Amino acid sequence: MQFTSEQRLDDGVIEREFTLGEIPGILWTPASSSADAPTPLILIGHPPLGLKKMYPRLAGRARYYAAEYGFASATIELPGSGERPRWAAVDQARADLRRAMQAGEPVGGEIVDALVLPLVDKAVPEWREALDALLALPGIDGPVGYEGGVISIGIRLAVTEPRIVAAGLFAGSLVPAAMFEEARRVTIPLHVLLQWDDEGNDRQAALDLFDAFGSKEKTLHANLGGHTGVPQFEIESGSRFFARHLR
Amino acid sequence: MQFTSEQRLDDGVIEREFTLGEIPGILWTPASSSADAPTPLILIGHPPLGLKKMYPRLAGRARYYAAEYGFASATIELPGSGERPRWAAVDQARADLRRAMQAGEPVGGEIVDALVLPLVDKAVPEWREALDALLALPGIDGPVGYEGGVISIGIRLAVTEPRIVAAGLFAGSLVPAAMFEEARRVTIPLHVLLQWDDEGNDRQAALDLFDAFGSKEKTLHANLGGHTGVPQFEIESGSRFFARHLR
Repeated sequence: MQFTSEQRLDDGVIEREFTLGEIPGILWTPASSSADAPTPLILIGHPPLGLKKMYPRLAGRARYYAAEYGFASATIELPGSGERPRWAAVDQARADLRRAMQAGEPVGGEIVDALVLPLVDKAVPEWREALDALLALPGIDGPVGYEGGVISIGIRLAVTEPRIVAAGLFAGSLVPAAMFEEARRVTIPLHVLLQWDDEGNDRQAALDLFDAFGSKEKTLHANLGGHTGVPQFEIESGSRFFARHLR
Repeated sequence: MQFTSEQRLDDGVIEREFTLGEIPGILWTPASSSADAPTPLILIGHPPLGLKKMYPRLAGRARYYAAEYGFASATIELPGSGERPRWAAVDQARADLRRAMQAGEPVGGEIVDALVLPLVDKAVPEWREALDALLALPGIDGPVGYEGGVISIGIRLAVTEPRIVAAGLFAGSLVPAAMFEEARRVTIPLHVLLQWDDEGNDRQAALDLFDAFGSKEKTLHANLGGHTGVPQFEIESGSRFFARHLR
């Protein structure tokens, strides 16, 4: 892990860009961390739209976690996104998806599988590698939470990465049928956000997925509005969920 | 409104029992209230099981609201419950409901209507009368929220009582079909709790009811577990919802 930039933001939070091999990422750490209390880490997930485009939303959450709760957080670029090399197969699946949605056609399972499953297979080991590097840094102790989009990546991480002890997931993306089976094997506490009128997502499928999770503690927060309309106050609910499980 | 007892609880909250005509009730007020900041009021609803039986749960919430948020709160006995005169028609409907549930039969709409609609018709004017009396007391200013069970009472109050500006409802009771139409006319912010595995309640009906509410701000918090298993942390979510709308 190589740091490529460092700045102290006006709320005192330190933002550092890094590269992990070819993968760019960002780490946010609280202004001051107590030597007594460990600093938990939140991995902030996002859709494959490129870190530059997602930056304002990700940094907003990370700075809130750091300033209000003393959590460190980090994100990495997804394969095939942003400044990473294009990935022809996923680009093709994305074009197929866009065409189906613009034509008002139902999005077939084969499109969803082609779009999401390779992304999960490739991204999850990268997140785990990033986790190794992040937890080796001084002042970042864990435990670790995962939050954000591409819910299938969150599911796979929750099932395979024992250092992740709680997850805040956004039920706002298309989920391959195979991921429902993995969802049954998730046992960590979950906090799931659902936008009730998400234009790109099927509400019933999201409710079925929530139902499928094997976790004994799982909470669904459904709010009125479309895909990008998650209310501001949910950042607080999410933080308190993590505070319960990471402190 | 006649006060019949007063005690200062160990957290400093003042608990006063009262009667309003034949209706018993309880008022909880914070230990100290600032002359500068108005004291909001929360009406705490409950199922028709009698105030004595419900007391621990109601007092637990009221004391939290008072101690942590400086809210006053109050509850009254429902018609036909507790020490109030029996109400033959509702007793009959309750017996019919119990028989149907014990026999594993579907609970017919006529049983639900007979159980809930008379209760709503009679209880809502009583809650409004209590509200008149409570807001006339020194140190209770409003605005007013309603929270708790018999969701149909909450719906009718939200539609007809303009002093109630926010409601936290528990989607844990049988809802007459007619109340779905009233739900569409609700416009105040709503915070709805749903127990995902509520043994006495139909999950899909609860989701349909959430969908029906006309409010622009509505949030559903669904948690794993049965009817009485609402997690302890939801008291905090509910309080913060009221703090956003009553402060």
